[in-house]
Amino acid sequence: MTAPRTIGVALLGLGNVGGGVVKLLEDNAAAIEARLGARLEVRAIAVRDPDKLDRVVAVDRALLTTDVDAAIRRPDVDIVCELMGGTTLAKDAVLAAIAAKRHVVTANKALLAEHWGEVFGAAERAGVDVYYEAAVCGGVPIIRVLREGLASDRVESIIGIVNGTSNYILSTMTESRRPFADILAEAQALGYAEADPTLDVGGGDAAHKLAILVNLCFGTTIDVAAIPKDGIDVVDPIDLAYAEKFGYVIKPLVIAREHGEPGTGPIEARVHPALVPSNWLLADVSGAKNAVYVQSYALGPSMYYGAGAGMLPTAMSVVSDMIEIARNMFARAGSQVARPRPTRVRPMVPVGDLRSPYYLRFGVHDQPGVLGQLMTILGAHAVSIAQVVQDGAPARRDSDTPVWVVVLTHSAREGDVRAALGEIDALPIVREPARVIRIAT
Amino acid sequence: MTAPRTIGVALLGLGNVGGGVVKLLEDNAAAIEARLGARLEVRAIAVRDPDKLDRVVAVDRALLTTDVDAAIRRPDVDIVCELMGGTTLAKDAVLAAIAAKRHVVTANKALLAEHWGEVFGAAERAGVDVYYEAAVCGGVPIIRVLREGLASDRVESIIGIVNGTSNYILSTMTESRRPFADILAEAQALGYAEADPTLDVGGGDAAHKLAILVNLCFGTTIDVAAIPKDGIDVVDPIDLAYAEKFGYVIKPLVIAREHGEPGTGPIEARVHPALVPSNWLLADVSGAKNAVYVQSYALGPSMYYGAGAGMLPTAMSVVSDMIEIARNMFARAGSQVARPRPTRVRPMVPVGDLRSPYYLRFGVHDQPGVLGQLMTILGAHAVSIAQVVQDGAPARRDSDTPVWVVVLTHSAREGDVRAALGEIDALPIVREPARVIRIAT
Repeated sequence: MTAPRTIGVALLGLGNVGGGVVKLLEDNAAAIEARLGARLEVRAIAVRDPDKLDRVVAVDRALLTTDVDAAIRRPDVDIVCELMGGTTLAKDAVLAAIAAKRHVVTANKALLAEHWGEVFGAAERAGVDVYYEAAVCGGVPIIRVLREGLASDRVESIIGIVNGTSNYILSTMTESRRPFADILAEAQALGYAEADPTLDVGGGDAAHKLAILVNLCFGTTIDVAAIPKDGIDVVDPIDLAYAEKFGYVIKPLVIAREHGEPGTGPIEARVHPALVPSNWLLADVSGAKNAVYVQSYALGPSMYYGAGAGMLPTAMSVVSDMIEIARNMFARAGSQVARPRPTRVRPMVPVGDLRSPYYLRFGVHDQPGVLGQLMTILGAHAVSIAQVVQDGAPARRDSDTPVWVVVLTHSAREGDVRAALGEIDALPIVREPARVIRIAT
Repeated sequence: MTAPRTIGVALLGLGNVGGGVVKLLEDNAAAIEARLGARLEVRAIAVRDPDKLDRVVAVDRALLTTDVDAAIRRPDVDIVCELMGGTTLAKDAVLAAIAAKRHVVTANKALLAEHWGEVFGAAERAGVDVYYEAAVCGGVPIIRVLREGLASDRVESIIGIVNGTSNYILSTMTESRRPFADILAEAQALGYAEADPTLDVGGGDAAHKLAILVNLCFGTTIDVAAIPKDGIDVVDPIDLAYAEKFGYVIKPLVIAREHGEPGTGPIEARVHPALVPSNWLLADVSGAKNAVYVQSYALGPSMYYGAGAGMLPTAMSVVSDMIEIARNMFARAGSQVARPRPTRVRPMVPVGDLRSPYYLRFGVHDQPGVLGQLMTILGAHAVSIAQVVQDGAPARRDSDTPVWVVVLTHSAREGDVRAALGEIDALPIVREPARVIRIAT
């Protein structure tokens, strides 16, 4: 009996996900070896401070090094696993690994979203694999599903909940009807939200993931900075109550679809909270969970749901990528054919031309004729009304509390809605700027 | 510029799915060629009657043949796609294709569930791939998810809705509160259910799919005939009403989990309708849709949802398998390492030892002391009660209408429940045998 083959791995970074990778390789060693017919062995771990004591897992001190390049270039390393984060040192490390003809696994959505062409161009020239399942939706195998499961299909649109922190905060707001700021502070205290939550709650993290999904679905890179983004801080508890009254819940969505000619037309891509009909499956994706709802030509609707973050779920995707790379290696082949090659850069649909139904909440003085003025302006901008709810009068006519008028529109052009709201917000009867949340369709 | 490479395909069968494959290869030809860097071309189609006119797609008459072996052995055929169904001719054809060193794609769940070892043993010896994504859940890429997406994980349990016909019938019964037989007759008239619906509504089709899922999740073949099965015909509209009262819906489930030592312990596998808590994602999987809810060590819960049947969804899985085989061919490699090799045959948990909470509906004479007798017998068999609902008395004491007593138990051994029900059903106060539906946990 011969000894099993072994694949050498260098980890760059030993934070939460890196620790999870070490733990998973140990915990599931037998199952992985049975499935792969080989062992995955960590041979070096590049860290900033080898003397740091509070690691999430215990590792052999001899594996640790501060020298990223040395870890990459060890002759017994086949796969480099980049878990450093960021787009400067991490980019250098990934390109160095590719140059050294190491296969790469990365969980770095920002790096891929911003430097897709450079990374995959280098990988193609070097003949190595770059896998990135953990970069989108943590443990949910959405990359494999889109790249392989739906390889014969044509995706028409995707609607996803891809930021667990935003979903956790909105879910908790929905249950408790307490304001955004309170729930955010709690989530930070519990470690569910970063000290600087901007990237999560402002939609930046979701936009990175959306850019990667767009690439897989529509074969084009897009400029992440050009993706229109609203953060979840636009949602107040009263909006959750109105949404429920109309049969919706509010979820932090990413949306992408192609317009015009399949394969060549412009791409619509956006990140914002939206009202989702309560009977949609996405409406039940709560807490920190992620899900992507895909509409494709042959399959029709399908959905993929699971943990979008966390030590072990994310590590699971990373290690599954290592296993696939190892399988490719044993088959003496790179799998570059497995990844779509963007053959063209497709334009994005301009923000003003995006269409959606809207939830609009106006805070107005309680005066006769208010509703008529609002409706007239909306109508003049071709924004057609589906439903209107107007609160009763406040207790005193001169009360500081505004009266709420909530309008649900039919599908309308974003540019038209913005123009109408510009006029409305300038009216003397208006107490505060309109609150605008899109309705998912 | 060189001509694109071409992969030759022989289709065995040109029914609904075969027609879908032809259509999809045409409709998505450009996208497939862009992704694969090659063309998939149908070179022969084996059919029973080449003169049949009402095909679901128009095909070149010259492609049709009645000679299965000739289609397989054409020198320009690389992939044989078995869409004949059944386990006799289809088995011969698949083994002949493997012997001729053709890669195989099949949608045939019965063949794989019953002859797994023989088919994959032959494929391994011949060094060819056998792919079968379409055999379970139609277009939902659950095979790829389990085999590759969760390759580094350890599945603990799965709960699936894998038979679209059963789900359609139960969903329609739930909406309309009309009896099973009526809805089945309608579904047959509409072509949603087979003329002989036994395999679908009796759980046989689901058991085939479950055997394949068990193989992927737990690395063992199981005897399909030994899987305990209840059909959905045990469900009456009144059970749907009671389920709703308690906060449940009734779904046609397959369930599998491992007991004892991970990797070696016995396997629990069963097929039956069950009460599912209304707030579970599975509760919202309605109509003909399928879904599999997976609980695994690292990822935790995840769910995969979509069309479990239909011409294009099923064809989508078949053609995605062809693409993956073509990629493997270009990489000059079989992917045999990609499939788990059952290293042992694991025992099944005996039916009597299966545990679950139960919904029990008793039809009794309205007499004092009835409830006491039922409770005493259940208690004597260690079946602990969670909730009881007893109907009010019927209009006349001698009415033919039984009084319903509905009991929800805590988790209990199936053997104990059956023993208790044996005693209860023999009581003079009992008007009809107890209705038994498990509650999903």
